Amino acid sequence: DSKLKIFSLNSNRELAEEIAENVGIPLGKSSVTHFSDGEIQINIEESIRGYDVFIVQSTSQPVNENLMELLIMIDAVKRASARTVNVVIPYYGYARQDRKARSREPITAKLVANLLETAGATRVVVLDLHAPQIQGFFDILIDHLVAVPLISEYFLNESGIDLENVIVVSPDHGGVTRARKMADRLKAPIAIIDKRRPRPNVAEVMNIVGNVEGKTAIIIDDIIDTAGTISIAASALIESGAKEVYACCTHPVLSGPAIQRIDDSVIKKLIITNSIALPEEKKSPKIKQLSVAKLLAETIVRVHEQKSVSTLFD
Amino acid sequence: DSKLKIFSLNSNRELAEEIAENVGIPLGKSSVTHFSDGEIQINIEESIRGYDVFIVQSTSQPVNENLMELLIMIDAVKRASARTVNVVIPYYGYARQDRKARSREPITAKLVANLLETAGATRVVVLDLHAPQIQGFFDILIDHLVAVPLISEYFLNESGIDLENVIVVSPDHGGVTRARKMADRLKAPIAIIDKRRPRPNVAEVMNIVGNVEGKTAIIIDDIIDTAGTISIAASALIESGAKEVYACCTHPVLSGPAIQRIDDSVIKKLIITNSIALPEEKKSPKIKQLSVAKLLAETIVRVHEQKSVSTLFD
Ligand SMILES: Nc1ncnc2c1ncn2[C@@H]1O[C@H](COP(=O)(O)O)[C@@H](O)[C@H]1O
Ligand SMILES: Nc1ncnc2c1ncn2[C@@H]1O[C@H](COP(=O)(O)O)[C@@H](O)[C@H]1O
Repeated sequence: DSKLKIFSLNSNRELAEEIAENVGIPLGKSSVTHFSDGEIQINIEESIRGYDVFIVQSTSQPVNENLMELLIMIDAVKRASARTVNVVIPYYGYARQDRKARSREPITAKLVANLLETAGATRVVVLDLHAPQIQGFFDILIDHLVAVPLISEYFLNESGIDLENVIVVSPDHGGVTRARKMADRLKAPIAIIDKRRPRPNVAEVMNIVGNVEGKTAIIIDDIIDTAGTISIAASALIESGAKEVYACCTHPVLSGPAIQRIDDSVIKKLIITNSIALPEEKKSPKIKQLSVAKLLAETIVRVHEQKSVSTLFD
Repeated sequence: DSKLKIFSLNSNRELAEEIAENVGIPLGKSSVTHFSDGEIQINIEESIRGYDVFIVQSTSQPVNENLMELLIMIDAVKRASARTVNVVIPYYGYARQDRKARSREPITAKLVANLLETAGATRVVVLDLHAPQIQGFFDILIDHLVAVPLISEYFLNESGIDLENVIVVSPDHGGVTRARKMADRLKAPIAIIDKRRPRPNVAEVMNIVGNVEGKTAIIIDDIIDTAGTISIAASALIESGAKEVYACCTHPVLSGPAIQRIDDSVIKKLIITNSIALPEEKKSPKIKQLSVAKLLAETIVRVHEQKSVSTLFD
């Protein structure tokens, strides 16, 4: 009897089920419903006294609803005398609000870190934070996992593309480290897209640093949201002579016109993970989803057994 | 130049406008919008450095959205070097989750208090908390206003009912103190509805303690949510010989079937406040809304001028 329980909230039950399966235990019994006025009602339906509890919840859309579910669940788990309250947040919402870019802006990514701690989280497991600095927003322990190995495995073993001819592309200067890591695994060179706005209110120009001529270009990003940048970047790569373009990201936010843009773009295939659930209406023949369940299951087991998780970090 | 600013968020702009008008200053300029993925984006559009800032927001439906707006705004105001960050929460959502009624329940009313403090609120102004004990959930200053005087004024001066013949009714034992306060102002006796469930899964029986025969009964409650209890209570009063029944409450949650139930009930008129905005589709000829704007404006001015607000408490 190893005193480990995993609970799912509503953002991504399929992933939570798969994590529990990989760990080899059933999901903890709980219900998350709403009162008539929309307030969240949580019931934990089995004892967790003295347990290491892991709560799986991405703070994806609807982000405020999902975040409040998580905070209330943390409160309930803490008050039910759990030994530790670990939150597994495959997609950490509000991560792009991580600094004051202008006067009088909030820093919501830091606020969320504080709220999780205040509610009673004792440890946080996240995947590919938009900025790795967000780790420092927490005073509690944080494990920061990365999806590059998983995505690289796909290209190495499943994609069927000619690996001799690949170039890995970072869509901006902020993503070069990630692209570098993937390029190392694929033994490929890298290129960088250098965006520049010549004058205010004039369309951005995409300048490609590196030679993509005749190559299979793989653009890697952490988040694809409205898919505007990635679609234009893909066209720019083809115009610069790339043979074909693949795109990949950890977090498929895919809001607004994203799916239409991907379908209409020159992107041959988009590889994503299930850090955010992909609803039926967003499924497209161009999209291939890889599962982070094994990675998260392995992390949960190691944390529970007090073993090092650092080998899972890159 | 008195260094006072009032900002409105999205739950109840009409009330905030009216408060600002009563204070005699325009609302502070800010915008609260959403990014494509539903994340909240807040911009404060004027300097608030060194100001006493008051943020007006009820955490009414959609409660999680409204609460996150408030928390993010508090963060932004704090980081913009406001002198004090005062939050005016006419309706405090999650107030009914104020204790563990069963094992492994959260105490969300306490969680919300902690979240507000963590975000950076320095003072809280609330109106008719579901339980006055919630005041003790805060370590920061809290002003707890009551609507009984305002509602009593309506019955004394505007309602046109025969005040000699009134009886004030508490719909449950928890509300007797509030009913007592109103009865004192109306110089009327009180009755109490004693609910009892004879056996599990059998309908509640409403027993009326006090003589309502031939009287104009006024039921007073803090929250009317689905309006189930109040409609049945009104019928029970008529069956016990009451001549007519009025109902009143501070917080018109009015979720689900509430309006239909009120319209179908024997209730002659429902008096509410604007602590929660009443959307167009909920307006009914039976409903009379009183404004708490003056009360809140007076409180804001006194807090800003560091004067006592205690005379506003009952
Ligand atoms: N949910 C969001 N959707 C789009 N843009 C955002 C979002 N949250 C924050 N931002 C903006 O994105 C910028 C940060 O993005 P980045 O430069 O990629 O780190 C900031 O200036 C934010 O104003
Ligand atoms: N939003 C809500 N709607 C209906 N019932 C609620 C709500 N929040 C909490 N409750 C329940 O209401 C009870 C408290 O109500 P009361 O006895 O009137 O203080 C608790 O047992 C809660 O489970």
